Amino acid sequence: MSSITQAEIKQVRSLREKKFRDELGLFVVEGEKLVEEALRSGFEVVRVWRRDEIGEAAMARISQLSTPSPVLAVVSRPAPQGPAVPTGLCLALDGVRDPGNLGTILRIADWFGVETVYVSEDCVELFNPKVIQASMGSVFRVRVVPADLPALARQCRAAGMPVYGTFLDGKDLYRETLSREGLVVMGNEAAGIRPEVAAEVDARLLIPSFGRSGAESLNVAVATAVTLSEFRRR
Amino acid sequence: MSSITQAEIKQVRSLREKKFRDELGLFVVEGEKLVEEALRSGFEVVRVWRRDEIGEAAMARISQLSTPSPVLAVVSRPAPQGPAVPTGLCLALDGVRDPGNLGTILRIADWFGVETVYVSEDCVELFNPKVIQASMGSVFRVRVVPADLPALARQCRAAGMPVYGTFLDGKDLYRETLSREGLVVMGNEAAGIRPEVAAEVDARLLIPSFGRSGAESLNVAVATAVTLSEFRRR
Repeated sequence: MSSITQAEIKQVRSLREKKFRDELGLFVVEGEKLVEEALRSGFEVVRVWRRDEIGEAAMARISQLSTPSPVLAVVSRPAPQGPAVPTGLCLALDGVRDPGNLGTILRIADWFGVETVYVSEDCVELFNPKVIQASMGSVFRVRVVPADLPALARQCRAAGMPVYGTFLDGKDLYRETLSREGLVVMGNEAAGIRPEVAAEVDARLLIPSFGRSGAESLNVAVATAVTLSEFRRR
Repeated sequence: MSSITQAEIKQVRSLREKKFRDELGLFVVEGEKLVEEALRSGFEVVRVWRRDEIGEAAMARISQLSTPSPVLAVVSRPAPQGPAVPTGLCLALDGVRDPGNLGTILRIADWFGVETVYVSEDCVELFNPKVIQASMGSVFRVRVVPADLPALARQCRAAGMPVYGTFLDGKDLYRETLSREGLVVMGNEAAGIRPEVAAEVDARLLIPSFGRSGAESLNVAVATAVTLSEFRRR
């Protein structure tokens, strides 16, 4: 049985906190499937710890899950990179705060062939363990690029790329003509898209509701899926 | 300050467990918005506890949230009821186990005007606090009816109502003709739709993916939203 030192346990555990993820430039991935995806991806896997090798007690100490998985990897955070000006169909997230939502949105982007997701500075951190888990590996396939969204939207428009956003007073998504490329902006869970970003949106879209009784909104990840589905269907 | 007795605290706390929810026929709702929706709904609200009245310490003891909300209601569980044979567009959930998924699906059903959701016996319990919170009040507007899904699907077909389901080997959802009424079956998070239910499905649908790199699946709530959006758009 290969061993893990106390210092190593301490380091892996420290990655539960954003402060140490930032300082060390590392994050944690757990579970057979996710670790396999990390190894296949372009990300640098610094170390893999297996329960078989370090024992159940040590695994329980380093795991961030309530039921520790059999394998955990420490992965190096890549420098954010991506096209400065979007091409194809891209997403921009304006203040998405919930880690489950961000992870689910990455999975949705991956499914619908959106290669780049721009995130405002106040979005939840990409390497938050809940984001990683909810993304189901899509974090390794979709480029996530921090961006100043108003500036990005202006760049898109200057390049002739339409900028879309969803609003409660937008036009029926099902009846608008949607281009094959463009930037789709999704807003914060409670406040939606900020005014300074909204000001740069060309086409304000609405997902119509069909209930009589009145659900007030859709979850932002769900709204993202319905919107991207509409862009992709032909 | 009106007081809450130790026995009352104990009773409210006991509702964290399914066993006691079943025994007492009660469940808990928290937060201004949800409690207001409970009061406006046809559900019987047995008791409302406010932080202003019982004090912060007592509220912290009865609350199920990590940040206790200012108001908590104890609500009586209604007897499940609903049309024995579906009418309009209905959903059937075959073994949806995650409470967040069930709650989110109810919110989606509410948005898309689906009035009845049939659930198999092995779905997560409707009155699980996480289901209630994730539903954002839709639990009070959408009828949830326990059902034997193979029998229900047979009844639908006998009544001339088509039964749809999503499968990895289904036909492109965007190219199929979808009827205005029907039963849409969504499966378990990992295993999908059980063979005995799948055998009763008339139209096997697939949500196509557009990525090159390969997300393997969509979350079941997200898939439900994309599917219902496609049924409702015209």
